[in-house]
Amino acid sequence: MISIVVSTNRQEATSEKVALYYQILLKAQNADSQLINLIDLPTDFIFTALYNNAGKNERFNLIQQAIIDTEKFVFIVPEYNGSFPGVLKAFIDGLPYPSPFKDKKIALVGLSSGIQGGALALSHLSDIFAYLNANVLGTRVKLMQIEKNLVDGKITNDFYNQLLNDQVKKLVAF
Amino acid sequence: MISIVVSTNRQEATSEKVALYYQILLKAQNADSQLINLIDLPTDFIFTALYNNAGKNERFNLIQQAIIDTEKFVFIVPEYNGSFPGVLKAFIDGLPYPSPFKDKKIALVGLSSGIQGGALALSHLSDIFAYLNANVLGTRVKLMQIEKNLVDGKITNDFYNQLLNDQVKKLVAF
Amino acid sequence: MISIVVSTNRQEATSEKVALYYQILLKAQNADSQLINLIDLPTDFIFTALYNNAGKNERFNLIQQAIIDTEKFVFIVPEYNGSFPGVLKAFIDGLPYPSPFKDKKIALVGLSSGIQGGALALSHLSDIFAYLNANVLGTRVKLMQIEKNLVDGKITNDFYNQLLNDQVKKLVAF
Amino acid sequence: MISIVVSTNRQEATSEKVALYYQILLKAQNADSQLINLIDLPTDFIFTALYNNAGKNERFNLIQQAIIDTEKFVFIVPEYNGSFPGVLKAFIDGLPYPSPFKDKKIALVGLSSGIQGGALALSHLSDIFAYLNANVLGTRVKLMQIEKNLVDGKITNDFYNQLLNDQVKKLVAF
Repeated sequence: MISIVVSTNRQEATSEKVALYYQILLKAQNADSQLINLIDLPTDFIFTALYNNAGKNERFNLIQQAIIDTEKFVFIVPEYNGSFPGVLKAFIDGLPYPSPFKDKKIALVGLSSGIQGGALALSHLSDIFAYLNANVLGTRVKLMQIEKNLVDGKITNDFYNQLLNDQVKKLVAF
Repeated sequence: MISIVVSTNRQEATSEKVALYYQILLKAQNADSQLINLIDLPTDFIFTALYNNAGKNERFNLIQQAIIDTEKFVFIVPEYNGSFPGVLKAFIDGLPYPSPFKDKKIALVGLSSGIQGGALALSHLSDIFAYLNANVLGTRVKLMQIEKNLVDGKITNDFYNQLLNDQVKKLVAF
Repeated sequence: MISIVVSTNRQEATSEKVALYYQILLKAQNADSQLINLIDLPTDFIFTALYNNAGKNERFNLIQQAIIDTEKFVFIVPEYNGSFPGVLKAFIDGLPYPSPFKDKKIALVGLSSGIQGGALALSHLSDIFAYLNANVLGTRVKLMQIEKNLVDGKITNDFYNQLLNDQVKKLVAF
Repeated sequence: MISIVVSTNRQEATSEKVALYYQILLKAQNADSQLINLIDLPTDFIFTALYNNAGKNERFNLIQQAIIDTEKFVFIVPEYNGSFPGVLKAFIDGLPYPSPFKDKKIALVGLSSGIQGGALALSHLSDIFAYLNANVLGTRVKLMQIEKNLVDGKITNDFYNQLLNDQVKKLVAF
């Protein structure tokens, strides 16, 4: 079971659409998957589930358990202010120590409205996962100008589909 | 007026103590300063002050206004999971566009319990501030094993004090 | 006097053309400049001018002196293998300690044939200059698909010219 | 066969000593290995083996062939000026396209005289290897103050040995 993490808590996020599309690509490779969507986090979790309150928020713990129970992940990461969404890092900050990502396998997909495709977001995130001793697949996929290339929930850009399918196969074999 | 940003919402954070100490060092250079402490953020701001709700949370707006009104900043940044606290980036994600940091001047201080001193945290943060067209002072101060070197609110390590005083003078002149 | 550094030793480099164009933009702001071109480095400098041989290569020392004598720099940085050219870092590794970049002012321009515009190259380079206590202008210019946008030595893309002129003005005032 | 890359061309480099020690640790796990030492590069390779001269330098090609023939690597990376040695990146810049590192497996060890342990060096290098579609083991080992902790070719610090042995086992199983 692969978990696809929608790495933002924004309503009707493009990341969620891309996550659902990624699920179809995984299915075509006979790989089961589930979504973990940060929009499901408790609205006050950065105060009620972190630091001295770690472990005390039941709704946070449910999502945390899904992370603990997963061995392989894809993070769909929109670029906000030149990096990943703060909420994603705050979520990671709420997870227990030692990290549930330790020795697990992770693929990264960056999305941007502009032309960067989240290059720095994925670089920063790779540093964090390395710190947590998780193995990040070398092949990082960066999808720039995502809104132009996503129609009715499908990526319409052939090159993007090639990049995604290549990553999907590598992740399944990782 | 220089704003010293306590870059975490943790209770009784070491960052707050270092911020207060930094204020004394600024005072010695005849520079006025104020603290902006992320613990004062509304507990649910990542849902009530971001995206479609940008600008709608009065308490968030107060802190945002302090950012808008400041030309020079010091960010005291504890290392969480190999980078900056997620809450700091979530706060930045809630600020208006164009960024209130545009063309402003920023100094960075990293803190860690371990030996890294927040090297990657400050690197990631520099990328974000560059994206927002803010000028980050080249001299980044990294204070590792901070708990051992902070007694009764005072940095006791001579080398750390030298680094901090050097940065303070550069920031005042920046 | 601003030094424009052509950050590669490739023959007929696009970076050199962009450097000459940047010189025109600086001239329009009444700022004098000179080129420092890494193609002028001795072919064996990575062995004859580094480590125990530091300071012993006269031709290297000439270029080094130009760095020492300059207060403001622009680095024109082509993207090679997802970062800056190795020769640029090898050149920096040959410079004396303390660094001649200490407390100086630097602007960064990234070039790429592909779509990234050297985002990671400039991020890595900013870390290095911060380590050397140099101040890097927040506004990093990234010019992707540079070959399509440079005709007869002139940048033809209006948006790129806007970014460059904005940076030029900031650098002059930095 | 695992290749251990001494990532500098400095004479009597500490990196070479650590590489030889790493070889002993690999041997204890029944893993054969060889050293690839950048000191063996032609002194003028940055001009005679790159760009239009790619493939034309026989001595460079020999080392390149060792990279092509290897599936798993450890890079021993000393920290120079806050990042990896420029010569390492220049070497990578001379390798053919598509990269001989594509889909291969890489572990990273950072060394420093100071306290950083090459944290940024390994971060930058991870970005480059990701660009080349190589898979970098999440567990990055950072050995600070290396001279104090290496006696007669042996790492004497128990914690460092624990980190190295943990990485060795993970690399063998990667």
